[in-house]
Amino acid sequence: MTLPRYRDPAAPVPDRVRDLLDRMTLPEKVGQLNQRMYGWDAYERAGDGHRLTDAFRAEVAAFDGMGALYGLQRADAWSGVGFADGLDARDGARAAAAVQRYLVDHTRLGIPALLVEEMPHGHQALDGTVLPVNLAAGATWDPRLYADAVAGAAGELRARGAHIALVSALDLVRDPRWGRSEECFAEDPYLAARMTEALVEGAGRAGVAVVLKHFAGQGATVGGRNSAATELGTRELHEVHLAAARAGVAAGAAGVMAAYNEFDGLPCVASRYLLTDLLRTQWGFEGVVMADGTAVDRLVRLTGDPVAAGALALDAGCDLSLWDDSFTRLGEAVERGLVSEPALDAAVARVLALKFRLGLFEAPVPSADAEVLPDPGELSERVARASVTLLSHEGGVLPLSRGLRRIAVLGPNADSLTQQIGDYTAPQRPGSGITVLEGVRAAAAPGTEVVHGRGCDLVGEDVSQVPAAVALAAGSDVAVLVLGGSSARSPDTVFDANGAAVTGSAPATGMTCGEGVDLADLALPSAQRALLAAVSATGTPVVVVLVQGRPHALPEADAPAAVLSAWYPGPRGGRAVAEVLFGDAEPRGRLPVSVPRSAAQLPVFYNGKDHRYRGYVDQSAGPRHAFGHGLSYTSVEYGEPRLSHARVGARAPLATCRVTVRNTGPRRAEETVQLYVRRLSGGTSWPRVRELRGFVRLSIAPGAEADAVFEVGPDTLASVGRDLRLAVEPGVVELETGPASDRTRGVRLEITDSASHAT
Amino acid sequence: MTLPRYRDPAAPVPDRVRDLLDRMTLPEKVGQLNQRMYGWDAYERAGDGHRLTDAFRAEVAAFDGMGALYGLQRADAWSGVGFADGLDARDGARAAAAVQRYLVDHTRLGIPALLVEEMPHGHQALDGTVLPVNLAAGATWDPRLYADAVAGAAGELRARGAHIALVSALDLVRDPRWGRSEECFAEDPYLAARMTEALVEGAGRAGVAVVLKHFAGQGATVGGRNSAATELGTRELHEVHLAAARAGVAAGAAGVMAAYNEFDGLPCVASRYLLTDLLRTQWGFEGVVMADGTAVDRLVRLTGDPVAAGALALDAGCDLSLWDDSFTRLGEAVERGLVSEPALDAAVARVLALKFRLGLFEAPVPSADAEVLPDPGELSERVARASVTLLSHEGGVLPLSRGLRRIAVLGPNADSLTQQIGDYTAPQRPGSGITVLEGVRAAAAPGTEVVHGRGCDLVGEDVSQVPAAVALAAGSDVAVLVLGGSSARSPDTVFDANGAAVTGSAPATGMTCGEGVDLADLALPSAQRALLAAVSATGTPVVVVLVQGRPHALPEADAPAAVLSAWYPGPRGGRAVAEVLFGDAEPRGRLPVSVPRSAAQLPVFYNGKDHRYRGYVDQSAGPRHAFGHGLSYTSVEYGEPRLSHARVGARAPLATCRVTVRNTGPRRAEETVQLYVRRLSGGTSWPRVRELRGFVRLSIAPGAEADAVFEVGPDTLASVGRDLRLAVEPGVVELETGPASDRTRGVRLEITDSASHAT
Repeated sequence: MTLPRYRDPAAPVPDRVRDLLDRMTLPEKVGQLNQRMYGWDAYERAGDGHRLTDAFRAEVAAFDGMGALYGLQRADAWSGVGFADGLDARDGARAAAAVQRYLVDHTRLGIPALLVEEMPHGHQALDGTVLPVNLAAGATWDPRLYADAVAGAAGELRARGAHIALVSALDLVRDPRWGRSEECFAEDPYLAARMTEALVEGAGRAGVAVVLKHFAGQGATVGGRNSAATELGTRELHEVHLAAARAGVAAGAAGVMAAYNEFDGLPCVASRYLLTDLLRTQWGFEGVVMADGTAVDRLVRLTGDPVAAGALALDAGCDLSLWDDSFTRLGEAVERGLVSEPALDAAVARVLALKFRLGLFEAPVPSADAEVLPDPGELSERVARASVTLLSHEGGVLPLSRGLRRIAVLGPNADSLTQQIGDYTAPQRPGSGITVLEGVRAAAAPGTEVVHGRGCDLVGEDVSQVPAAVALAAGSDVAVLVLGGSSARSPDTVFDANGAAVTGSAPATGMTCGEGVDLADLALPSAQRALLAAVSATGTPVVVVLVQGRPHALPEADAPAAVLSAWYPGPRGGRAVAEVLFGDAEPRGRLPVSVPRSAAQLPVFYNGKDHRYRGYVDQSAGPRHAFGHGLSYTSVEYGEPRLSHARVGARAPLATCRVTVRNTGPRRAEETVQLYVRRLSGGTSWPRVRELRGFVRLSIAPGAEADAVFEVGPDTLASVGRDLRLAVEPGVVELETGPASDRTRGVRLEITDSASHAT
Repeated sequence: MTLPRYRDPAAPVPDRVRDLLDRMTLPEKVGQLNQRMYGWDAYERAGDGHRLTDAFRAEVAAFDGMGALYGLQRADAWSGVGFADGLDARDGARAAAAVQRYLVDHTRLGIPALLVEEMPHGHQALDGTVLPVNLAAGATWDPRLYADAVAGAAGELRARGAHIALVSALDLVRDPRWGRSEECFAEDPYLAARMTEALVEGAGRAGVAVVLKHFAGQGATVGGRNSAATELGTRELHEVHLAAARAGVAAGAAGVMAAYNEFDGLPCVASRYLLTDLLRTQWGFEGVVMADGTAVDRLVRLTGDPVAAGALALDAGCDLSLWDDSFTRLGEAVERGLVSEPALDAAVARVLALKFRLGLFEAPVPSADAEVLPDPGELSERVARASVTLLSHEGGVLPLSRGLRRIAVLGPNADSLTQQIGDYTAPQRPGSGITVLEGVRAAAAPGTEVVHGRGCDLVGEDVSQVPAAVALAAGSDVAVLVLGGSSARSPDTVFDANGAAVTGSAPATGMTCGEGVDLADLALPSAQRALLAAVSATGTPVVVVLVQGRPHALPEADAPAAVLSAWYPGPRGGRAVAEVLFGDAEPRGRLPVSVPRSAAQLPVFYNGKDHRYRGYVDQSAGPRHAFGHGLSYTSVEYGEPRLSHARVGARAPLATCRVTVRNTGPRRAEETVQLYVRRLSGGTSWPRVRELRGFVRLSIAPGAEADAVFEVGPDTLASVGRDLRLAVEPGVVELETGPASDRTRGVRLEITDSASHAT
């Protein structure tokens, strides 16, 4: 008996897909497009181990197969999965194997499922290593380091039998009120694009395919309101919001997730323009499009009918649903003529092709990868260290002297592991992790006393604990005040159908950030402000460490001796912060997002259109700290940028831009040199103030100098032409280099003609 | 000798245009497209009168003609024109005649100029009657009353020899941080459209042609920042921002002004899509497109070259520039092949056609209109009275009793004529107008003492005058606290090239509103908040009257006995406010804009997309007061809306929606019954929460009831289809009636099929 062709590993994937598709019934096809079940409902504890549930068997039976199973390993407050009955690393691998064996043995065609897991910053599973949040990764401006960390985390995921990692990468922090700001790499498309490439590449090293969240424009939602409307025009979409997706697709992403938000009046999952015309036809993407959770069911608001909702999404280009009922009814949609069977087949073919490419048919139960991958725990700490961003520093209080008598470590984020790891995290083992308090205690000299007071709760107006904290500060040489936000969910949190927190429930549990937790006022909560003011009034030098998932607006009146943003630095973040505070590591983070002065002046992103706006009458329209900003413990001087050519042709616009940086201070400089393009004339769209188009890290010894060298090519110079395609357009630009977006010096380059630029 | 055909009044306008055009040289044509000169530079004082300047003669000579002369009569701080040397009503008519006589006598073809004047809310000229600002007019929800007021104001303008009134009408208050919010009718497209029709119709009664400002989407600028970028997509443009323009064009507007803001990456003046494809080709508009001031010159930022800038604007569809140099160089543009001579001719033809239609060739110097037009002063006061909006009212303090012993009238807006008339106003004659203090004094009973204290300055933190005000309040039966904003410019104000205030200069002069004066924080300035808190603490009932050009966010903590918005009510506004306070008039204004709780929660417009957003974690996303809200001194009860048909076909979707309103209180009800459409399913774009589609005013005696009757037709039901055309789309909608956008009751209507709807 010969093997069916689809089972022949030597056959080309398209042939295997075609062969298998030809054997499938309509219900079987529909089943391959579905990912309805919550993975944690697929298993239950049985004695010392776990077993598959009746619900799982029923879900498989419904379509004689299962396209994908979401979050088998997920653990968190929403899923209700914890150490008591959840899957740890060992059990997770076993459960994944059981799922695949069941599918192979108990369905007619034996097609394994895609096992899809959340890996927003580490695998969201028990014993999964948590990395700093993406906004922290963005603050490193170090895609290579981030790729290593991703490879380590993906290795853990792969070792548990999963294939697909869902990772936020495409959203931009255009409005920091948005609770998911922490999941973004940056406000800037170029930086986000480089990090997205690193993500795909790093995961790929571990054999893990990435689905990039979310396509497209979710950072543009009105008012920073989660999964709400955008007023986004096509041009703003192309000029700002697509770069990361384009880069991720080029790097080999397996899929993109269609976002909740609207574009052109339709949720992305219903946008044929986005999912088909742009992504597949124009960009040549061959992967899958997955809907965001319940996004297809939400279309019933539009269509009035679930069958039509599924048809609308499929017709737009969605291949795989998530938790939806309406996508399971695509058979009816075909029968009612709402969508054609060839359209259905095309989606099924994309899902099957991904399964073939991932080797599911040859190895439904993957063996633990033999390849040695980096230790994600150590890398998580390295990312945290590289992300610490020194925002302001007066009077040389940092690095902290090892000769200090007493240090007060104060504030609601000083000693909370759950508050420093961010959203989309699994329960942590008791005793694991290092808080800032623990980090400072460990790093301080034996003769230094480290005292601690919480000072206040994260939210609210209760100032009853302030006096005790003030007393500690007054008796100390320095006060390290650890303030900021929290995305820690608890069993008290109320969740929406898609796992987002229901915000009405959040204040009680102290959340100010995370999915569903948008914040109108970016000032710190009232008690934290009172604590800062009271501690500042003692006269003891105050170092504020912000543990946060978004930039907060600090009051201008209090001027601490130093302010650092540690973002959500992950479980070992306390050590990273302490090393920077004591100067065992240099602060080298750079702002991936502009820091506003207040919510009233939003937006403050650096790369808006250049209309010479002079500011509001009552306050500046500019940020408190600019994109790219970040101080160090040394000082540097930038020379003028130097160009190899004063003019270039568009067809071969090759030049070199070089800038010399001198370390004029006493310590090693870890300098992120930034290259911006500022259009002076020409182009078919109104120019932006400036746009990041390159960055290079230099490590310079005290007194030494080094050159940052940027190759200026089509990628550097391309802009979005009238036809919405990238092109090198004639005119004059300024190439600017500097340490931050508000401290650049430029040199003029003339582009003499135009040429389209392959995307 | 026979008259040239273009001089034959009996010839059809197109024939006259063609004949004249054929006689013109290229420079003469270019001259007809230009409106470079500031009108106040065209004359100078000479003895008891005025004479034309050399600069005027030189400008005419440059192109042997003049397309249009802007603002010959304009007087304000920017132009520097005042009573000392400016044109009053009598001199204005003479100067206009002199201009036209000069053109007729001293140019080869003798083409008179279009005399173009600002009439934002009354003619911005010495002795021009100031009307309440457009936002106040919007608060009346009374297009007929507004049309009467416009007719009166336009009559004044026409009597001074001018033909064209520039009026803001198309912008919407989507972000109340915008300093030009006061110039908008509403945040809502339907209400703005009805007021725009009234504007065009009212001006037309006086023989004045209207150029509608600004086309298109200027209300969508990012951050409420004046003339800055928008991220506006095509769909949001069509669904929200075009209705007023469409209505104004249909009503016969002579022109539209191309806005500063971008659409699709280009300033509107460079948008062929907006100015030609949409406006002319799709809508069939035959009037002129005028650039906003220096908008063409600004294009040099894009083109790098003024000649190319002019060509870009002309090619997009701009006919007439304003203060630009680059549009004067269109001859070069033709010679360099940047634009074709037929394109130039088409623009000249549109300008000439307007001149012919306005009768300029027959009567270059218009005679004072014999028609009796309404008295604009009296109408200004009627509009003010109808616009006073009672936002909150606890404890029945209003209407004020005539038996009160003493009333304290306090606050920085209590006694300032200039602060109650808004931006774009000419100097007022000393002793004219009625402030709120004067109005209360006049309206109070002889036995009531009215005391006054300023309390604080409009801006800043100086609270030194607060104690004196508190003492006055403490000794009074009621405190009327007149707070808010100011758009009053002074000789100290620094102006931009286009007359917008340079915001850095505004705080010194106390401006918080007006063109160029955007405000980040919508709370009242600090001293005003302190005054409110201190006066509230006296225990004396406080009635807050907000004199303002935008909604301010009042602190939730202080709860005055009543809060009224008087907007900028114009010169006689103080009497209107006093009449409402004493109950001589009912408060019948309804909010044309949602009142936010804070700037941090923006946007708060009522008609966003319906995404069931639950609010920010720290505050609601909903407004403090909803669009359409406004209390009265009586109470009403609304019944359920009743529909004549439960389903309609799209081709003839005629039904009647009826709701009964009962006056359950002690005084006459002046009720604005509102009709909203809320789509439940169907349609090709995600539905909005609700959309205003009708309003009717009922006057109901105490204890009586009346029916509001709405004809439900294609205009009521049309939505923007996938192809961006209006259509009646199948599905289910709810027709909702009620007293405000947040207090409606609905009835379902099924639309059984679809039909396109003629625009």
